[in-house]
Amino acid sequence: MTPSPQRPRPPEPFSRRLVEVFTGNGKGKTSAALGGVVRALGHGLRVHIVYFMKGEYPYGEQPVLEKLENVSFERFGFTDFCDPDNVTEEEKEQAHRALSAARQAMSSGKYDLVVLDEVNVASSWQLIDVQDVVGMIKDKPDRVELILTGRGADPRVIELADLVTEMRKLKHPYDRGILSRKGFDF
Amino acid sequence: MTPSPQRPRPPEPFSRRLVEVFTGNGKGKTSAALGGVVRALGHGLRVHIVYFMKGEYPYGEQPVLEKLENVSFERFGFTDFCDPDNVTEEEKEQAHRALSAARQAMSSGKYDLVVLDEVNVASSWQLIDVQDVVGMIKDKPDRVELILTGRGADPRVIELADLVTEMRKLKHPYDRGILSRKGFDF
Repeated sequence: MTPSPQRPRPPEPFSRRLVEVFTGNGKGKTSAALGGVVRALGHGLRVHIVYFMKGEYPYGEQPVLEKLENVSFERFGFTDFCDPDNVTEEEKEQAHRALSAARQAMSSGKYDLVVLDEVNVASSWQLIDVQDVVGMIKDKPDRVELILTGRGADPRVIELADLVTEMRKLKHPYDRGILSRKGFDF
Repeated sequence: MTPSPQRPRPPEPFSRRLVEVFTGNGKGKTSAALGGVVRALGHGLRVHIVYFMKGEYPYGEQPVLEKLENVSFERFGFTDFCDPDNVTEEEKEQAHRALSAARQAMSSGKYDLVVLDEVNVASSWQLIDVQDVVGMIKDKPDRVELILTGRGADPRVIELADLVTEMRKLKHPYDRGILSRKGFDF
């Protein structure tokens, strides 16, 4: 039997990386991305997180991320979530800057995983054009994993993604009037 | 106007804590719990994680958790997920030990958040009796948050929980034959 020709194989850590989307109306989208970050760090991967719509809010994870190696983040947008019916030019500008920061991180060769937190909200509220998100996904280098979070993921993004989880709310304390809780919800 | 009587108010960090459940067949349940852990740590809360069915597997998050303060974990069960049709006495024993460790952590006064990772699988496969999980939830002190993960959460657990998210698989690379990937899936 003739041996089959040796094909070049990609080195172990560079099996093609994927696009993951966490969407839906339930709790756990940003949390799942953060859990993914911690897991990736534990295996020595390098991570960058771009927060699209979370401004200067005191998110609990950030002081922890600052203590860890191989992870960095950038925050865009404003403290209060914007009003989708009255989007300001400043809010659009922030979301555009976030997308461009994410694209730059993705193409830099410096990261194994780039998280685009709340990008789905930014595109469904038309702060950014979903075609620009689609274009970014299409340009993704094989060696970078992308995680996109936020409710209202566009069907074109879902179509391109390799993994999509819908976080479906079965129960949420908001519905009983319990507001966002420090340490658990942010 | 007579001033309304002063009512005693609980100190800020001790508003009643809740029971969160992440279930469903999609990716993101353990990840969301881990993200919740990181967020809680950033606000100075103390966390304990009990892994019910994950044995000595090299989970990515664990070396990272070991570097952080205020978080500890215990692992039970075996490396391979057990066969629900052929549960061994050893597997049951491990799951019982996990539940008893979780209950002890919950009652110790040492933790603000206790995570029961894969407890829902352990009870739906009858490694443990769901009534023991229900009993634990009913005994939860107000000052402890519980997060229970795993597919197949029992309706009695869902009934008692304050927050339930079903992680619904819309797409998963497993379905295309892509196996569990180090750094991203574990």
